[in-house]
Amino acid sequence: MSSFLFDKICFVGIGHICSSLAWAARKHGLARRLVALEISESARRTAVEIGVVDEATADAAQAVKGAGLVVCGVPVGAMEDVGRAIGPHLEAGTIVTDTGSVKLAVVRDLGPHMPDGVHFIPGHPIAGTEHSGPTSGFAELFEGRWHILTPLPGTDDAALEKLSELWRRVGAQLEIMDPHHHDKVLAITSHLPHLIAYTIVGTASDLEGHMQQEVIKFSASGFRDFTRIAASDPIMWRDVFLNNREAVLEVIQRFTEDLTALQRAIRWGEGEVLQKRFTETRAIRRAIIDAKQA
Amino acid sequence: MSSFLFDKICFVGIGHICSSLAWAARKHGLARRLVALEISESARRTAVEIGVVDEATADAAQAVKGAGLVVCGVPVGAMEDVGRAIGPHLEAGTIVTDTGSVKLAVVRDLGPHMPDGVHFIPGHPIAGTEHSGPTSGFAELFEGRWHILTPLPGTDDAALEKLSELWRRVGAQLEIMDPHHHDKVLAITSHLPHLIAYTIVGTASDLEGHMQQEVIKFSASGFRDFTRIAASDPIMWRDVFLNNREAVLEVIQRFTEDLTALQRAIRWGEGEVLQKRFTETRAIRRAIIDAKQA
Repeated sequence: MSSFLFDKICFVGIGHICSSLAWAARKHGLARRLVALEISESARRTAVEIGVVDEATADAAQAVKGAGLVVCGVPVGAMEDVGRAIGPHLEAGTIVTDTGSVKLAVVRDLGPHMPDGVHFIPGHPIAGTEHSGPTSGFAELFEGRWHILTPLPGTDDAALEKLSELWRRVGAQLEIMDPHHHDKVLAITSHLPHLIAYTIVGTASDLEGHMQQEVIKFSASGFRDFTRIAASDPIMWRDVFLNNREAVLEVIQRFTEDLTALQRAIRWGEGEVLQKRFTETRAIRRAIIDAKQA
Repeated sequence: MSSFLFDKICFVGIGHICSSLAWAARKHGLARRLVALEISESARRTAVEIGVVDEATADAAQAVKGAGLVVCGVPVGAMEDVGRAIGPHLEAGTIVTDTGSVKLAVVRDLGPHMPDGVHFIPGHPIAGTEHSGPTSGFAELFEGRWHILTPLPGTDDAALEKLSELWRRVGAQLEIMDPHHHDKVLAITSHLPHLIAYTIVGTASDLEGHMQQEVIKFSASGFRDFTRIAASDPIMWRDVFLNNREAVLEVIQRFTEDLTALQRAIRWGEGEVLQKRFTETRAIRRAIIDAKQA
């Protein structure tokens, strides 16, 4: 009388996303056994201590053995190493997915290591906080959020449906997308905002001591809205930018043009240009509130 | 047995900040009578209907008559008109302050209209939401937030102390600053972040329909953090940029240099540059959390 979707789920890297998914899997009874494949000894110890997984190991063969689902939740730049480590041990019928913020690079780096008979279905949950590590996860992270899957041509329908069901059960809404399109959309909605936030907080962190103290003190005037996402995991984000280079460079270019136009309007005192622009942007905020993503 | 600080307070412009201050004045019993001087007929009607003030008028003489305190809460670009309207009717001993986000321009535009014997003490509460209008105020807005006063040389100590006491009673922490320094600090903590947010949301609002829908849908991936402040009052912000031009143009320049450096690192695949920068910014977030301004 079990309603487990999977007998065993293996999480590769037990950071913020995978620990959240593990808690959610426990909460909703989605798997009999949860195992982490994790290279950090302290993360392995912590993950088992807090009970987010039943077992944590650095042995790839042991970790994936008998797993119906393997979820790769490592920085995008580590996917190739993961593929090399787990590839030889994957059993036919296993579903392999990931949670990377870039999809073309994951297809490129993980794809070639997937043996025949393994169902490789890349994915990206549009959820997360600025926190990282195995203690930062919580079961409700995906509730009401989107989960994007970018299946490759010829993906097995039953495997896709089973993976979709997992994400639905943890509360996510599903979207199917082409990986190339995913990377373009996320360059705008996620990668550019993070880069801008890192930049503006970085600009402030270069100020001399006294001025920096004042920026912190008076951050409620706007600045602090940027600092939350600028506190995100540095390695994860380094890898995002290195692995979605073209799309990111294109949106930076567009952003810079738009900033230059506003800068020019300020310099020349063109109040109407500023007011018009500042009015248009309110509509987007309203649309986000209406879409219940605020 | 009254503990009123003022018999009558006059709010010039009953928008987000002044309606919040009026509710806070009621909550803490700071004045016997609250009056709004307001040019918008609908705002006057609303303000009286919801009870945030006892009286609302478009007659400057009537509004400021007998007021121990006049608080100018209009966009910075309207301060000169306000000065011209209220100046001739101000009585000796009255304290006049404002809540503008720029201080040198307010000193320039309001100062010359202040008659002898009137205590003009510019101010700026580091508080506010993205909402505007008389219905958006709430009494707790200033609690735990900073209020900056930028008194001019020769300001009367008793008047400064009385105004400070008002802000302390509504829960604010006080900071005294030179107006020039204020404008430089706020250009970084507030004006640049708002400009950047307006820019990035504007970039998204220029996308063609389908792409724009996707940006809204997947905004939880970073973008939505910017949309809140990009929904702020367009006229208020137009006036900020037009009236703090030099300081804003200087910080845009600094920001653009920093963005260009990161853009270059992405183009050339310089992972260490990115990782180093993304690590430094975490410290600022921690400092803001420690300062209880998060």
